Amino acid sequence: MNKERNIFLEKQTIKKALEILFNNFPVNKKPESETVAVVDSVKRVLSKPVFAKLSSPCFHSAAMDGIAVLSKSTFGAHEFSPKQLEIDKDAFYINTGQIIPGNTNAVIMIEHINEKDSGFVEIESPVVPWQNVRKMGEDIVATQLLFPRNHKITPYCIGALFSGGIYFVDVIKKPKILIIPTGREIVAPEENINIKPGQIIETNSYVLGKLAESAGGSYTGNSIIEDDPEKIEKAVKSGISNKYDIILIIGGSSAGSKDFAKQVIEKTGSLLFHGVTMMPGKPVLLGSVKDTPVFGIPGYQVSAIVAFEQFVQPLVLNILKQQRIDPVQIKVHPARKIPSKIGVTEFLRVKLGRVGKKIVATPLKKSAGCITSLTEASGIIKITNNAEGISADTPVFANLLKPLNLVENTIVIAGSHDNTIDLLSDLIKEKDNSISVSSNHIGSMGGLMAIKKGVAHIAGSHLLDTSNGSYNISYIKKYLPDIN
Amino acid sequence: MNKERNIFLEKQTIKKALEILFNNFPVNKKPESETVAVVDSVKRVLSKPVFAKLSSPCFHSAAMDGIAVLSKSTFGAHEFSPKQLEIDKDAFYINTGQIIPGNTNAVIMIEHINEKDSGFVEIESPVVPWQNVRKMGEDIVATQLLFPRNHKITPYCIGALFSGGIYFVDVIKKPKILIIPTGREIVAPEENINIKPGQIIETNSYVLGKLAESAGGSYTGNSIIEDDPEKIEKAVKSGISNKYDIILIIGGSSAGSKDFAKQVIEKTGSLLFHGVTMMPGKPVLLGSVKDTPVFGIPGYQVSAIVAFEQFVQPLVLNILKQQRIDPVQIKVHPARKIPSKIGVTEFLRVKLGRVGKKIVATPLKKSAGCITSLTEASGIIKITNNAEGISADTPVFANLLKPLNLVENTIVIAGSHDNTIDLLSDLIKEKDNSISVSSNHIGSMGGLMAIKKGVAHIAGSHLLDTSNGSYNISYIKKYLPDIN
Repeated sequence: MNKERNIFLEKQTIKKALEILFNNFPVNKKPESETVAVVDSVKRVLSKPVFAKLSSPCFHSAAMDGIAVLSKSTFGAHEFSPKQLEIDKDAFYINTGQIIPGNTNAVIMIEHINEKDSGFVEIESPVVPWQNVRKMGEDIVATQLLFPRNHKITPYCIGALFSGGIYFVDVIKKPKILIIPTGREIVAPEENINIKPGQIIETNSYVLGKLAESAGGSYTGNSIIEDDPEKIEKAVKSGISNKYDIILIIGGSSAGSKDFAKQVIEKTGSLLFHGVTMMPGKPVLLGSVKDTPVFGIPGYQVSAIVAFEQFVQPLVLNILKQQRIDPVQIKVHPARKIPSKIGVTEFLRVKLGRVGKKIVATPLKKSAGCITSLTEASGIIKITNNAEGISADTPVFANLLKPLNLVENTIVIAGSHDNTIDLLSDLIKEKDNSISVSSNHIGSMGGLMAIKKGVAHIAGSHLLDTSNGSYNISYIKKYLPDIN
Repeated sequence: MNKERNIFLEKQTIKKALEILFNNFPVNKKPESETVAVVDSVKRVLSKPVFAKLSSPCFHSAAMDGIAVLSKSTFGAHEFSPKQLEIDKDAFYINTGQIIPGNTNAVIMIEHINEKDSGFVEIESPVVPWQNVRKMGEDIVATQLLFPRNHKITPYCIGALFSGGIYFVDVIKKPKILIIPTGREIVAPEENINIKPGQIIETNSYVLGKLAESAGGSYTGNSIIEDDPEKIEKAVKSGISNKYDIILIIGGSSAGSKDFAKQVIEKTGSLLFHGVTMMPGKPVLLGSVKDTPVFGIPGYQVSAIVAFEQFVQPLVLNILKQQRIDPVQIKVHPARKIPSKIGVTEFLRVKLGRVGKKIVATPLKKSAGCITSLTEASGIIKITNNAEGISADTPVFANLLKPLNLVENTIVIAGSHDNTIDLLSDLIKEKDNSISVSSNHIGSMGGLMAIKKGVAHIAGSHLLDTSNGSYNISYIKKYLPDIN
């Protein structure tokens, strides 16, 4: 059985693997384009520059409520020698935004007019030509560049496009991603499924699909394929003939006897890398099959997400000519020492919260199979491959997964867990959603130590003193003498 | 005619206006809820806490490729006295993720096994119970809280929900927003419209609608209503009977003779404020009609957006129990002095770019009618109502509208404009989309001064020296002696 096992090629660093990826799949000079209505173009990327067809405004208009006049007719007006203007002859009532009559070139504010009977108004100061007038083309001049190619449309842009007389735009087609979940043990998430021991609910095609959509792509989830290289090969070939831009084989990317992703890629195309020195996500692999990038993505949920975010997402953004947006980083203090392997880049999921002057980072479970280690995380500490870990003495940078104001407003609980903390955390969210609860299950003594070290606000503890049958008090006196 | 004009009530500060808004429309304890499939739940907000129905994994499985064993059977194994285990009796080949056989409780890594002929393997060290085993419930334990109420679903959450056996979730209904564009001068954006002088293309219902969607709401754009208070009233009443959560009357919110928003609100409900001490967006008004918030939103595009972002967006987020996310702020150096009125909060649109050690902020056109002042902006400087403006000597904070890495990579051009700069900016985007061009039209001499002050990289200039017919040289010698 062991003889069938794969072996990893030389593992690549993240940096080297990205180089291999982009050398083999460089930016396409002329990406495929499609035409969409401006109203449907938000978040799409222009494939061509857009030039205005109309000027905006396309006429001279009043910038104030008042009367439109020919400025010449106001010259000489003075507090001590006001001028009279005849309504609908020398002066025309006008509201902001209205076109000024053809024989006028300025507007006098309504507040500066004395109204007289019998169709006359009186003014006490003159206006210069174009005073209080919004001139034609003030915002947009026909033929001007509205947006260069590769610009990503925002809601604001809709206003400029419509104002410039543009109703349709050419945009880069959304990269199409085919996601093929594989594995004899996985079952599709369906209501009333009766999940049996040994079975795992398939989540990766949905999670990675939604991440692909967030990055600007579209996705199709293939039906689940059991561990059968011929069926996987057929699905990959079908994806290529259906012109998918990227194909992901989920599961079977490692080196086990049922890991067929490498075999399929080597048979149908060429393997570019197998294994990256990162954790989670090490057993990711990349191949090129008929010029289409085919990834083998590890099946553990967090591994799949890390592999996607490190390699697939940058490729999607590259097709869309978009830059990766640097995550927001803040300086944090690790709640405890965390060892990490030299030569491996580790993505450590942490819960963040301000305790006193520091933002404290409490590490979550390390297992790559724990999706909750990511859904509960408010930050990621990237431990580079030349570090042996992080220590509680040295602040490090964390990438924020949640807005900073939520992190600042987090109650940090450490120690022994109780389900009432979950219920409390929900009730707090009902009352005030600006407050979060971070609960870290590190045992009663761990909780007291967290208080001592200043890395938690509250500790759950139920330590029995067998000498007198009391709980906690003697431990607190002993370990937290300053807090009594 | 003037007699029909409205007058502003006492204008409110932004802070006071928000207080009035939230006092009259407080957070709803029990927001309306609907059930959606988990796969459609990204960006929705849970109306109830979600507890897991299944444990994940729901069985003990191998955490490594290797052989599953009963740990007891390995005790005593040593480099100098290896133990032999019989395959399919004492030891079972297993891949990562597979269920361990019922009579085993540990896994030995494949790398630590010596394979023997005739169905035996040899091991040189023992394993403790549960070593290399992923225990049932490691990720999720049935009945545990997965997410508290008011939690916003991300792609990651889909993985935890499916793994916990959850296929449908109860979420807060999207706030429904009715947008009623008004004004005799506006026309709907349609292909081949023949726009006439005096007409303006209606953009606000689309721009604000897309902003409402970004905030988590849904919108309906009403057809355009001319300046007729009865028709506006009818549309508002129809919106209320169709259970819209928020109604926006666009245009006619000021105090002109054709400004009917206030009149309609006073007739059908009660006016809560009219006018806010901010620029753009001053003529915003709020009323309550049958307990529904009805806003009068000014018609100028930037005014409409500022009014929406200051008041409507916070209300949408409040209905969804979500916090406003603080914008990312950076310290910038104004390229020149900008005066601002005391008593008014000004939202100044600026172009940002790094020149030498400073990030320089070049102000864009002030006019509230210029949507391009927002689409071209990379930042907003909020000049508070107790400041008389900003000066070139003092750095101030700007809210970022674009990612910081784009701002850092901006070529700042100032001076006389030429259309080739537009074309160049598009060609640069084709070659490398990480680079932006910020072009600021401040005339030839302004450009030279910008270089002198260190607030631009490149200046466009065509200054004629009439004494000898040469261009630029003598001006540069005179004004930029250090640069020759």
